[in-house]
Amino acid sequence: MLINCVAYEHGRKLADIGTDQIAHWLKEPEAFVWVALLDPSAEELAQMQREFGLHELAVEDALKGHQRPKIEEYGDMVFVVMHLVEPADDDLAVGEVAVFVGKNFILSARSRSRHGFLGVRERCEREPLLLERGSGFVLYALMDAVVDRYFPVIDLLEAELEGIEEQIFAAGAARGNIERLYDLKHRSAVLRHAVAPLLEMLNKLHGGRVPPVFASTQEYFRDVHDHLARINGSIDTIRDTIGTAIQVNLSMVAIEESETNKRLAAWAAIFAVSTAMAGIWGMNFEVMPELKWRYGYPAALGAIVIAGLVLYRRFRKVGWL
Amino acid sequence: MLINCVAYEHGRKLADIGTDQIAHWLKEPEAFVWVALLDPSAEELAQMQREFGLHELAVEDALKGHQRPKIEEYGDMVFVVMHLVEPADDDLAVGEVAVFVGKNFILSARSRSRHGFLGVRERCEREPLLLERGSGFVLYALMDAVVDRYFPVIDLLEAELEGIEEQIFAAGAARGNIERLYDLKHRSAVLRHAVAPLLEMLNKLHGGRVPPVFASTQEYFRDVHDHLARINGSIDTIRDTIGTAIQVNLSMVAIEESETNKRLAAWAAIFAVSTAMAGIWGMNFEVMPELKWRYGYPAALGAIVIAGLVLYRRFRKVGWL
Amino acid sequence: MLINCVAYEHGRKLADIGTDQIAHWLKEPEAFVWVALLDPSAEELAQMQREFGLHELAVEDALKGHQRPKIEEYGDMVFVVMHLVEPADDDLAVGEVAVFVGKNFILSARSRSRHGFLGVRERCEREPLLLERGSGFVLYALMDAVVDRYFPVIDLLEAELEGIEEQIFAAGAARGNIERLYDLKHRSAVLRHAVAPLLEMLNKLHGGRVPPVFASTQEYFRDVHDHLARINGSIDTIRDTIGTAIQVNLSMVAIEESETNKRLAAWAAIFAVSTAMAGIWGMNFEVMPELKWRYGYPAALGAIVIAGLVLYRRFRKVGWL
Amino acid sequence: MLINCVAYEHGRKLADIGTDQIAHWLKEPEAFVWVALLDPSAEELAQMQREFGLHELAVEDALKGHQRPKIEEYGDMVFVVMHLVEPADDDLAVGEVAVFVGKNFILSARSRSRHGFLGVRERCEREPLLLERGSGFVLYALMDAVVDRYFPVIDLLEAELEGIEEQIFAAGAARGNIERLYDLKHRSAVLRHAVAPLLEMLNKLHGGRVPPVFASTQEYFRDVHDHLARINGSIDTIRDTIGTAIQVNLSMVAIEESETNKRLAAWAAIFAVSTAMAGIWGMNFEVMPELKWRYGYPAALGAIVIAGLVLYRRFRKVGWL
Amino acid sequence: MLINCVAYEHGRKLADIGTDQIAHWLKEPEAFVWVALLDPSAEELAQMQREFGLHELAVEDALKGHQRPKIEEYGDMVFVVMHLVEPADDDLAVGEVAVFVGKNFILSARSRSRHGFLGVRERCEREPLLLERGSGFVLYALMDAVVDRYFPVIDLLEAELEGIEEQIFAAGAARGNIERLYDLKHRSAVLRHAVAPLLEMLNKLHGGRVPPVFASTQEYFRDVHDHLARINGSIDTIRDTIGTAIQVNLSMVAIEESETNKRLAAWAAIFAVSTAMAGIWGMNFEVMPELKWRYGYPAALGAIVIAGLVLYRRFRKVGWL
Ligand SMILES: [Mg+2]
Ligand SMILES: [Mg+2]
Ligand SMILES: [Mg+2]
Ligand SMILES: [Mg+2]
Ligand SMILES: [Mg+2]
Ligand SMILES: [Mg+2]
Ligand SMILES: [Mg+2]
Ligand SMILES: [Mg+2]
Ligand SMILES: [Mg+2]
Ligand SMILES: [Mg+2]
Ligand SMILES: [Mg+2]
Ligand SMILES: [Mg+2]
Ligand SMILES: [Mg+2]
Ligand SMILES: [Mg+2]
Ligand SMILES: [Mg+2]
Ligand SMILES: [Mg+2]
Ligand SMILES: [Mg+2]
Ligand SMILES: [Mg+2]
Ligand SMILES: [Mg+2]
Ligand SMILES: [Mg+2]
Ligand SMILES: [Mg+2]
Ligand SMILES: [Mg+2]
Ligand SMILES: [Mg+2]
Ligand SMILES: [Mg+2]
Ligand SMILES: [Mg+2]
Ligand SMILES: [Mg+2]
Ligand SMILES: [Mg+2]
Ligand SMILES: [Mg+2]
Ligand SMILES: [Mg+2]
Ligand SMILES: [Mg+2]
Ligand SMILES: [Mg+2]
Repeated sequence: MLINCVAYEHGRKLADIGTDQIAHWLKEPEAFVWVALLDPSAEELAQMQREFGLHELAVEDALKGHQRPKIEEYGDMVFVVMHLVEPADDDLAVGEVAVFVGKNFILSARSRSRHGFLGVRERCEREPLLLERGSGFVLYALMDAVVDRYFPVIDLLEAELEGIEEQIFAAGAARGNIERLYDLKHRSAVLRHAVAPLLEMLNKLHGGRVPPVFASTQEYFRDVHDHLARINGSIDTIRDTIGTAIQVNLSMVAIEESETNKRLAAWAAIFAVSTAMAGIWGMNFEVMPELKWRYGYPAALGAIVIAGLVLYRRFRKVGWL
Repeated sequence: MLINCVAYEHGRKLADIGTDQIAHWLKEPEAFVWVALLDPSAEELAQMQREFGLHELAVEDALKGHQRPKIEEYGDMVFVVMHLVEPADDDLAVGEVAVFVGKNFILSARSRSRHGFLGVRERCEREPLLLERGSGFVLYALMDAVVDRYFPVIDLLEAELEGIEEQIFAAGAARGNIERLYDLKHRSAVLRHAVAPLLEMLNKLHGGRVPPVFASTQEYFRDVHDHLARINGSIDTIRDTIGTAIQVNLSMVAIEESETNKRLAAWAAIFAVSTAMAGIWGMNFEVMPELKWRYGYPAALGAIVIAGLVLYRRFRKVGWL
Repeated sequence: MLINCVAYEHGRKLADIGTDQIAHWLKEPEAFVWVALLDPSAEELAQMQREFGLHELAVEDALKGHQRPKIEEYGDMVFVVMHLVEPADDDLAVGEVAVFVGKNFILSARSRSRHGFLGVRERCEREPLLLERGSGFVLYALMDAVVDRYFPVIDLLEAELEGIEEQIFAAGAARGNIERLYDLKHRSAVLRHAVAPLLEMLNKLHGGRVPPVFASTQEYFRDVHDHLARINGSIDTIRDTIGTAIQVNLSMVAIEESETNKRLAAWAAIFAVSTAMAGIWGMNFEVMPELKWRYGYPAALGAIVIAGLVLYRRFRKVGWL
Repeated sequence: MLINCVAYEHGRKLADIGTDQIAHWLKEPEAFVWVALLDPSAEELAQMQREFGLHELAVEDALKGHQRPKIEEYGDMVFVVMHLVEPADDDLAVGEVAVFVGKNFILSARSRSRHGFLGVRERCEREPLLLERGSGFVLYALMDAVVDRYFPVIDLLEAELEGIEEQIFAAGAARGNIERLYDLKHRSAVLRHAVAPLLEMLNKLHGGRVPPVFASTQEYFRDVHDHLARINGSIDTIRDTIGTAIQVNLSMVAIEESETNKRLAAWAAIFAVSTAMAGIWGMNFEVMPELKWRYGYPAALGAIVIAGLVLYRRFRKVGWL
Repeated sequence: MLINCVAYEHGRKLADIGTDQIAHWLKEPEAFVWVALLDPSAEELAQMQREFGLHELAVEDALKGHQRPKIEEYGDMVFVVMHLVEPADDDLAVGEVAVFVGKNFILSARSRSRHGFLGVRERCEREPLLLERGSGFVLYALMDAVVDRYFPVIDLLEAELEGIEEQIFAAGAARGNIERLYDLKHRSAVLRHAVAPLLEMLNKLHGGRVPPVFASTQEYFRDVHDHLARINGSIDTIRDTIGTAIQVNLSMVAIEESETNKRLAAWAAIFAVSTAMAGIWGMNFEVMPELKWRYGYPAALGAIVIAGLVLYRRFRKVGWL
């Protein structure tokens, strides 16, 4: 579905144009065309391929989707794939945007995501001095918008992790903790798959040799790079902390069990002594003088209770009760 | 066993030829010969060695098999080994294909695998504009077919992992989970041995200096590289998740045991108290007034039951029962 | 908030100047201006941006804060971000300082930290031969001060770790140990986030090509690099030791539990034997000759005690009691 | 001890020569001398040092032994150390061979190993076209023989690992498994010490710049490199699998213990109920009507047995028995 | 404290000189001065700084100590720091030696270590042909001596590890093992801090560009490099083995506990059955015919013993007893 198709010159919007006018505008040496598609059909992409001379392998990637984030050069054209990560219920939803950038055009094809880039277009149109740098700057603006949307996801994961950490030394929380940690590990892997490959490839757009269309935007892409490095660092920390938390959780289960065992053992001992004493006075020997005593029974009860109390206090002292 | 032996020129099939005609066609400057062997014998390979001037070390690898995936240059010839991975019963079957590529020939020798490459030949013959690029493009088409067959294997492993994940927090599933995780780890290692070495070596065929026969197919090999990187990323994720799942499974065993222990301890306490009380009234003291009471026995039973109920409710409250 | 604004020439302070005089002094070829801001407002930074011609992306980073430590070149200007790490209660407080360095100016903007850099200015003014090297040397002096403040933090973490290590084989300390280890792991991650990215980037300021303003200070930045490498090595050791200590702690819980279990089992056995013996003499068979013996009861008690003692000594011998 | 000393020219053996004739043959521009020593004494090595002009550091390494595998250049001479790994009882025996290669000589010094290289010499003498390439080819032949002997060792380790894997989910095998896994880890480390350093250094002999004596044998050393990479990959897999198997074994111990605990607990419950019921009917209340019933005793026994059976079936149902 | 101050020329000692004569000897183009200090004071180092023109940052490092091992160039001077590791009681004592090397001088400053380098000086003076290479060779001789002293430390750690390994499958050794493993891990970290940074930096002194003073000693430094690589490999193996041993030890605790539990459970079952049987014959039913039998009591005892024996044999058979 076509969202927009606009011609720009010297940083200013000239006109909304039809896709049939693209060929005309591509002949203007100073102008560039910016097209935005949503969930494009094979036919729409085939038309764009003809208009802009896109490489078949790049078009295939944009059509099929489910690509790894990447930045590829085809001659003097650049093809970029980014993941769009959004919180959804208890999981992360992953969409995708494929961007084709040439000297005088930029085409974005967004899939499986509700969030559009209208704000990006508005921001660009408000800053003609920057937009004047051409299609390379538009790619930066799109990329910056995509990457900025990773920050709330990271915040969400960090908040979830902190929530787990508050419970990690609490009694009886082990089962819930381990389930949440496992789930969080999965979500951090989803975000990492969006961030790490892009981070790895972004130095193609700044520093050293870059495609000509990005000659004047290197500081901007380095800034995106820096944002990605921060996010990646946070993901690494989250993943490392999850690993430690899983180990700590196992230790807490073992410690709790060991404490429970001691408490049980103490009570078991108290009752075992009672039962043994009662058993002794339940023996049928004929000559057991205390059985005849007037206060033999209360004395026996007292002895049992005292034995129990003595044990109770000793166990209390060593911290088992 | 010879499967095919065909001469091509300008992207079109000229003729099925006999192996004795190969030398004749190799003299045509614009033509190339494409030979496909299945489980080749030493004699067949020796004949091909003479026809195409293959290096003895490469021929030895093709004959012996069980090679690591690799891409090697011998002068202006390229030798490629790939693993063919197919699901088989509960395991993965691993076959192998060795490919020799020269300026005007390509020879594939497939071993220990049922799946052939007839589809590849048909696809190539349907696209003369691409096939015109020569034997380098045929290698791409073969490699693309091999790598595309890794995707269903990855899907299988991921489905198996998801199946385990559904059970991982279930009671009593620990033994089955650990067996399936161990087995899945093994299968992911088999696929990794097919993918990782090839991924590592594929940059010999695109980017920077490449052998002359691949001058016009660099984007295509980069696309294969990208597919391999995606598969490798998925394998890494599977392996990492298996590691976490093994740890989580151990934690679940510990948590379940700890819950079982508490339940048992609670019942043990209830019966220990009953036994101790019964033991006390079973003592043989002469003066135990309650033994003479008319309703002494039901009262004792009641006391025992009440003690049991009180304990039961307390254990219930703290979640042990 | 403006802390200082001073002009220097040939390593000596010329005058405290107003921010409106900066433009005047920037025209002096031999002089440089050193400005220090604390928690700067957007307006203050905008003014500095105009005076020194700072890049908008760098100014944005300085204003927003919460950056990853980094060293970036913007044309012939260098932008540096460092973390200021200070012990605070039971955690580490992290502030930030952003530094802009040009040929004839240096501007530092400190945020969220109480510790200033007045000592750095005094040290520089005391050593005119070094200060003569210009704004590059001032950056070194600032960086050296920041990095030197990491050492007491490392000492703190190492002391905490040693404190835990003294307890790690002590009975009953497992719960406290694991809580302290988890907390220490978190703090070591905070310090690592300050150190590792800076370490990685510092070779931009010494060795090989460096920005012209740092041409004469390379040995100094290499010394900072060396300090960071030492700190990073210590962090790695702390983190590695924490990992081992967590594993050891889990082992100690298991060992302690196993010892406790043996002790309990021994006592349980002693009482089980007593109870079984008492139960036997509590049976109601008519013909049980020993029940009629005069000293049957004391003999039975003796038998029970002896059985208990025999068991006690055997358990003692095998180390269970 | 001198094993052989032979002069070759144009790929053919000329004569067995005495060590005193070496200097004579070194003057022949087309010939080369191949000397093989076994457990050489300091004197023998000193003589060789004089004959061939060997560097003192290389001679020292050959004499002292216990070196890390390596490939070093001394001027236009190359010095190679390889480990000879052989199965021995339950461990791996590690010998060593040091090889000195110059333009017109090759000297091998083997230590602490029974397996010689006579087969290598025979193979070389059977293939004059290859041997014609000179001392570089002889090094290849030696290295190929050493590396080929690593394959049966890997097969042995893999067979041992598979043997353990068959037991890993078996009841009661945990102790044996862990002992065998620990031992296998040790042996895999021994083999890795032979393979990994050599793999790392082998690119000195093929690809890019190589010493002149190896100019015509690059494909051969790449083949050795490929063999080493395969072995190293197998070692990595073995080590990784051992790590997983140790974790799985621990899980199996925990799972088995948990199953045992449940079985025990079930039987304990059945007997606790019996004992409590018998205890109640063993109380001495005067008014316990059922005690007077004619069939009171069999009824009580029946009640006890039925209670036991009911419990038994419930435990059976939940899988504890 | 000054240990030695000697002038050398053409590989031979000329004279012991006073520190006031250094300036004189530095003017001799063919000579070099070798000074050795022990625990030098600030004054001594300041004097040396004036005599040899040392850089203030290097002098500061030598004075402060506690540096990371390193090799730094200051103009055409080289500054080296090495750790001196010696066994001390149950720990490793770490001293330090800082070495300044110029074209015609070498100055070593040793701290916190009892072992001197007199042997190195004697060895150098015995080999004038090597000493003729100048101050670069003296650095090699010092470094070789330092590194050779790491070997007995590694032997000590390996012996300790083997001692633990002999106990690792022994009953009841878990607590001692884990304490020794933790301690050994710490000591291996100390040695690694001496070795790893030096290994990383040593390629500054051989291969590719080296400082002019080391032009003729490259093979010698490569030999030191090789020794360090061997030591580092051994440390890696020790650390890896410790990690596995900790896991194995935990498994052994679990296995032993599981075996103990089974033994206990078996005895508990035997006594529970005895107690239940005795309890039944202790019930007070009026009609319990066997109570009246003449041999009822011995028969009951026999039944109890037989039940116990039957259980005993079954438990024996399944390996629980
Ligand atoms: Mg960060
Ligand atoms: Mg990263
Ligand atoms: Mg970070
Ligand atoms: Mg972070
Ligand atoms: Mg971290
Ligand atoms: Mg961890
Ligand atoms: Mg991916
Ligand atoms: Mg990978
Ligand atoms: Mg990935
Ligand atoms: Mg993936
Ligand atoms: Mg992952
Ligand atoms: Mg993991
Ligand atoms: Mg584990
Ligand atoms: Mg260090
Ligand atoms: Mg680091
Ligand atoms: Mg370190
Ligand atoms: Mg350190
Ligand atoms: Mg360490
Ligand atoms: Mg560790
Ligand atoms: Mg563990
Ligand atoms: Mg392999
Ligand atoms: Mg490897
Ligand atoms: Mg592998
Ligand atoms: Mg393998
Ligand atoms: Mg593996
Ligand atoms: Mg080694
Ligand atoms: Mg290392
Ligand atoms: Mg090693
Ligand atoms: Mg080693
Ligand atoms: Mg190892
Ligand atoms: Mg390990």
